[in-house]
Amino acid sequence: MDSRTGLPVVGMVGGGQLARMTHQAAIALGQSLRVLAAEPDDSAALVAADVHIGAPDDLETLRRFVKGCDVVTFDHEHVPGEHIRALAAGVAVHPGADALRYTQDKRAMRERLDALDVRVPRWRPVSAVADVTDFAAEVGWPVVLKAVRGGYDGRGVWVVSDRDEATTRLAAGPELIVEERVALRRELAVQVARSPFGQVAVYPVVETVQSDGICVEVLAPAPDLSLTEAVAIQQLAIRIAAELNVVGLLAVELFDVGGGGVGGGGGPVVLVNELAMRPHNSGHWTIDGSRTSQFEQHLRAVLDYPLGRTGLTAPAVAMANVLGGAPGGMPVDERLHHLFADEPGVKVHLYGKQIRPGRKIGHVTALGDTVAQVRASAARAARWLREGTG
Amino acid sequence: MDSRTGLPVVGMVGGGQLARMTHQAAIALGQSLRVLAAEPDDSAALVAADVHIGAPDDLETLRRFVKGCDVVTFDHEHVPGEHIRALAAGVAVHPGADALRYTQDKRAMRERLDALDVRVPRWRPVSAVADVTDFAAEVGWPVVLKAVRGGYDGRGVWVVSDRDEATTRLAAGPELIVEERVALRRELAVQVARSPFGQVAVYPVVETVQSDGICVEVLAPAPDLSLTEAVAIQQLAIRIAAELNVVGLLAVELFDVGGGGVGGGGGPVVLVNELAMRPHNSGHWTIDGSRTSQFEQHLRAVLDYPLGRTGLTAPAVAMANVLGGAPGGMPVDERLHHLFADEPGVKVHLYGKQIRPGRKIGHVTALGDTVAQVRASAARAARWLREGTG
Repeated sequence: MDSRTGLPVVGMVGGGQLARMTHQAAIALGQSLRVLAAEPDDSAALVAADVHIGAPDDLETLRRFVKGCDVVTFDHEHVPGEHIRALAAGVAVHPGADALRYTQDKRAMRERLDALDVRVPRWRPVSAVADVTDFAAEVGWPVVLKAVRGGYDGRGVWVVSDRDEATTRLAAGPELIVEERVALRRELAVQVARSPFGQVAVYPVVETVQSDGICVEVLAPAPDLSLTEAVAIQQLAIRIAAELNVVGLLAVELFDVGGGGVGGGGGPVVLVNELAMRPHNSGHWTIDGSRTSQFEQHLRAVLDYPLGRTGLTAPAVAMANVLGGAPGGMPVDERLHHLFADEPGVKVHLYGKQIRPGRKIGHVTALGDTVAQVRASAARAARWLREGTG
Repeated sequence: MDSRTGLPVVGMVGGGQLARMTHQAAIALGQSLRVLAAEPDDSAALVAADVHIGAPDDLETLRRFVKGCDVVTFDHEHVPGEHIRALAAGVAVHPGADALRYTQDKRAMRERLDALDVRVPRWRPVSAVADVTDFAAEVGWPVVLKAVRGGYDGRGVWVVSDRDEATTRLAAGPELIVEERVALRRELAVQVARSPFGQVAVYPVVETVQSDGICVEVLAPAPDLSLTEAVAIQQLAIRIAAELNVVGLLAVELFDVGGGGVGGGGGPVVLVNELAMRPHNSGHWTIDGSRTSQFEQHLRAVLDYPLGRTGLTAPAVAMANVLGGAPGGMPVDERLHHLFADEPGVKVHLYGKQIRPGRKIGHVTALGDTVAQVRASAARAARWLREGTG
């Protein structure tokens, strides 16, 4: 507790854009986020006042960092479970190691979801090439190999078409699972916040549009989803959050495979693809598009504050990620001028990163009355920043 | 220009809540606000990464502070004009000394507005008690004495009822003007942003509710104001901003004295009471209630970026200031719990200040469909924080 203000001190391990935007939210709550960044020029380290520099997997660094914190939370999944358990003896850590395990270990996550009768893509653990070929004989080639640990944004995922490719991949080392390649209609996501008290607040279901395994666009609410279907998906997320005892935000990434209906009403069948227990790219739209941003909501959840309203601030919201473009061309500041002149209603969020081709350097959000309109505005704004053309 | 990101560096002189909230807005624009704070525990100094500590009226401190800034701006009016002129030789300073003079010197402001045929309360410069008594003989006692320099939030303003009170006040020293005590129906305010290029963006006219000379509540848009009247007031603000060559935000505080009609249409007559050239308490509602917050808009204006949309995000918005309550009672963190449980849709903005009775420690914003509803919610939320009761 900050003795001057009487308000809590929250520490976030990780200094990326999620911590940067959480700091913005913390400021409004009268706090100043304490950040453990790996490097002094990490996104959050550039804008926060209370910054420690160190490795998130070093226990002594972590121990020094959490001293004086009321709650510790995370902007990534890279802190080993045993370190989290060690810290939790002295300070509240949310989410806890037992919950976070399901975001750090895809095999454990799939096993747990199977045990909960939550539908996931068909999958199998892999210890030898025969596991892959036997599985492919059942479900058909190609199949998807996934690293059990450490993958994100398309990394750690490989589509393999035959035994030879599988053999090469297995020889490369990391522990894998194999999954069917799902014929999906589209991807959906839903976020739910849960407090230690057990209060939950769920956001509208969104559609996420991927390119090369990276989320490039989010549409809120997900178009062409009935209220019944949306509520069934929200209830699924609430059930997972409660069963896994998540505290903070849970993002559930889903495959919409069409057909039977998660709500039993003839709507889409959804399979759970991924879980994340922190603010998530699929929720960046909430800063401008929801009454309570996912960053404020995460802070409220880990602090056991009552949660905020999750309604939309406009009928349609589109978020587009801004990726770094090719080097050269129009300076970024000039691109921003053009964007603002062209789209005065679009909200810009830049992460203070040096531009490298393909690197996520920010996002933009458009709000309006129709999906077509906001999607076009967001895409146009993102193009100004990436390419210097509208 | 930050060589790593290619984005500008803005320096703000003053480390209060206005700088704190401007830093939040700067983060989204990919920047990190450089702050010159008087003390290390000033509101903005607690949350910003790039903080200088020093006196805002010391030229050497200012020179060191502005080095490497692309633009310098202000969260208060306490930088002497000659210092601003000295700095402006080497860096863009917005607003400039010639404009800021009208916020630092009430006599100069009244003279300038008279010259522009903008209606203000009847007034007179004061050099002797006879100036006050002669003026009072014309307009009637009581009259209002105002310090020409340094007043704000009700400070530097005295209502005097007779010659003896005027004599005592004059003996106390500071240069004064005398004004009629206006029989006002209510107070209004309007904010306009203006860029060096000359683009303007004006916000909806709001009603400000004062208590003991301090703004306690702002209602947006101002109730019972016709579109014609509102547009006339907005045009007045645009004209003042252009005539005074304001760059950044201009807040115009107005007395609504009823009667003839600023737009010539039988609506309210408004008199200009005060000018401020920076983000302003009357615009705090814009963080949650407008598409572009006044803090982002101020940055866009001083950076000569095209300006953002100023529309409302809900039909009715109410902002209530949170003042520090009596010592003791429920801890502030517990008050915040009750507030969030009671009003899950209200947005809270706390300034990181130590609580002292009557001190502005934050504000709350309620959004909804009717003035009555949002006013009640904002007042209730502010009461939770001030008194620990709903």
